[in-house]
Amino acid sequence: MTTTINRQVRLAARPVGFPKTSDFELVEAAVPEPADGELLVRNSYMSVDPYMRGRMNDAKSYAPPFQLGEPMYGGAVGVVVESKHPDFSAGDAVTGSQGWREYDVVPGSAARKLDLDLAPMTAYLGVMGGTGFTAYVGLLDIGQPRAGETVFVSAAAGAVGSVVGQIASAMGCRVVGSAGSDAKVDFLTKELGFDAAFNYRTVDLEQALSETCPDGIDVYFENVGGDHLQAALNHMNPFGRIPACGMISLYNNAEPVPGPNNLATIVRQRITMRGFIISDHMDRRGDFERDMAAWLKDGSVKHYDTVVDGIENAVGAFLGLLQGENIGKMLVKVGPEPGGA
Amino acid sequence: MTTTINRQVRLAARPVGFPKTSDFELVEAAVPEPADGELLVRNSYMSVDPYMRGRMNDAKSYAPPFQLGEPMYGGAVGVVVESKHPDFSAGDAVTGSQGWREYDVVPGSAARKLDLDLAPMTAYLGVMGGTGFTAYVGLLDIGQPRAGETVFVSAAAGAVGSVVGQIASAMGCRVVGSAGSDAKVDFLTKELGFDAAFNYRTVDLEQALSETCPDGIDVYFENVGGDHLQAALNHMNPFGRIPACGMISLYNNAEPVPGPNNLATIVRQRITMRGFIISDHMDRRGDFERDMAAWLKDGSVKHYDTVVDGIENAVGAFLGLLQGENIGKMLVKVGPEPGGA
Repeated sequence: MTTTINRQVRLAARPVGFPKTSDFELVEAAVPEPADGELLVRNSYMSVDPYMRGRMNDAKSYAPPFQLGEPMYGGAVGVVVESKHPDFSAGDAVTGSQGWREYDVVPGSAARKLDLDLAPMTAYLGVMGGTGFTAYVGLLDIGQPRAGETVFVSAAAGAVGSVVGQIASAMGCRVVGSAGSDAKVDFLTKELGFDAAFNYRTVDLEQALSETCPDGIDVYFENVGGDHLQAALNHMNPFGRIPACGMISLYNNAEPVPGPNNLATIVRQRITMRGFIISDHMDRRGDFERDMAAWLKDGSVKHYDTVVDGIENAVGAFLGLLQGENIGKMLVKVGPEPGGA
Repeated sequence: MTTTINRQVRLAARPVGFPKTSDFELVEAAVPEPADGELLVRNSYMSVDPYMRGRMNDAKSYAPPFQLGEPMYGGAVGVVVESKHPDFSAGDAVTGSQGWREYDVVPGSAARKLDLDLAPMTAYLGVMGGTGFTAYVGLLDIGQPRAGETVFVSAAAGAVGSVVGQIASAMGCRVVGSAGSDAKVDFLTKELGFDAAFNYRTVDLEQALSETCPDGIDVYFENVGGDHLQAALNHMNPFGRIPACGMISLYNNAEPVPGPNNLATIVRQRITMRGFIISDHMDRRGDFERDMAAWLKDGSVKHYDTVVDGIENAVGAFLGLLQGENIGKMLVKVGPEPGGA
């Protein structure tokens, strides 16, 4: 090992409203030592995700909140530096380590080798990782789209939304997305094959949905909440489904903000709105990996990411994510790829 | 026939906000003549229901709106005056005629004889009618309660709510209700066997739910919307279900009112909220009739109603319903029962 320093990002204060850089601190810790059965992993990339904002609050949720003064955690991929587990060797590319740090020790039983012939390393935090799995379960199991139906996706250029749209297209749905810049709208229609897309910052949502969803919405994949949900409800077809993956527009409100004024539509149109968390659906993981590998091979799904370099920029990447600065998956490169690049 | 006059209530104007008596008119029409295969029915009781408020608007919905200048319609039970169908005779008690009128002609194929040994005539507009069927499908199929779970019902002393609570009790659930008067709260706990109830007009909803649902809410049977939904969401357990039967608090708003500020709870707690309309679930009608007959016989469900006398008071009964003046099913007696009473 060439260093004994393991930089990591800790939660310094619980954010009130939109997080500030002073809510975080970059500290130097020691590189941990693997015990028998464990691996020392040098992280190559770490994931920043909207759900992490919720874990910064000290609130009851499906997962314990981040602890003040402790490193945060999240998805990462990296390279084995030292293995004390028979199934792994130094140099293996793996997932299983925690992010927001340069090095991590993980049990061999929690690590998985990456198939870099199938997809690049970063894809294992994106389309082949929790992001892709979230899109898969949310769209297919909760949304249950049928060919010919209209699927509307909010935050469509983001990590999950961009995969939802590609899967929905592959299934023969009409796919419409909203995003927060003209560049993202171009990305959706020109790269991802969306049938229509609009920049929600420059249009009237109601009018945009009337124009882009002339046959109404059958599945609204909810990433945003607030005005998006209200407008989508006004265009939902009878028996429409709303997989509720997240409501990023609400996460940074210091005070609660009133919601849609048209929830009675849920009754009138017999809509099903269902929240989901991917950890409840691990029985579908094998199906997901099989299907996504096939889609990657045949080109119906592609991986896109926005990579920020250096753990010292991880907080900036996270804050940028919350403001929609990414196209595709937002990642932070915190160390070399296998082979040293 | 002793009269040729058929009084009926027509929609005179589309209400703006809370309906006014001048939005309706009581007019005298001719008693219709049955053709071959039809019955002339003298209505005994007619139903007034919250959903009728929606049909007074000229808005896209699951059913066409009431037409201006035409009689409104809805559930009724009555007595056959003249039969031109071989399966029915004068004096038979039947359902199938339309309400908001004293007489109606119906095809014999659309009429059904009532079993007055099983339940009184009025019950066929309540627990044995669409009201009971709504409670049955909404609670069992949409809510899917399990023994030991907590079921919270809003508008619990109303037609649907009072049946929901009784079925949930019979299934071994902890049943909690909200209602709009102390008399209704007494009715819920002393007559219907609710485990707890509160008067939402005199308590803090959040605190009341904390006290009455110490283990959280697994099924919130939604009749009200607005503040009730917001408070219930804050107490929902993971994987909770919200059958959305109606949102009566919203029906008379002249302008849309903002909704709950905590819809992100749907994601965090993986809640399923699902609207339903009973006409989509006719495949369950046979199961409902079998089960409800059994519950009526063994006493686990009882029928309760509030009866207003005379078609000239039907509008008042409807407006009273919208203000919660009923306990159990709100009915209007518009003619004699079989035998002349």
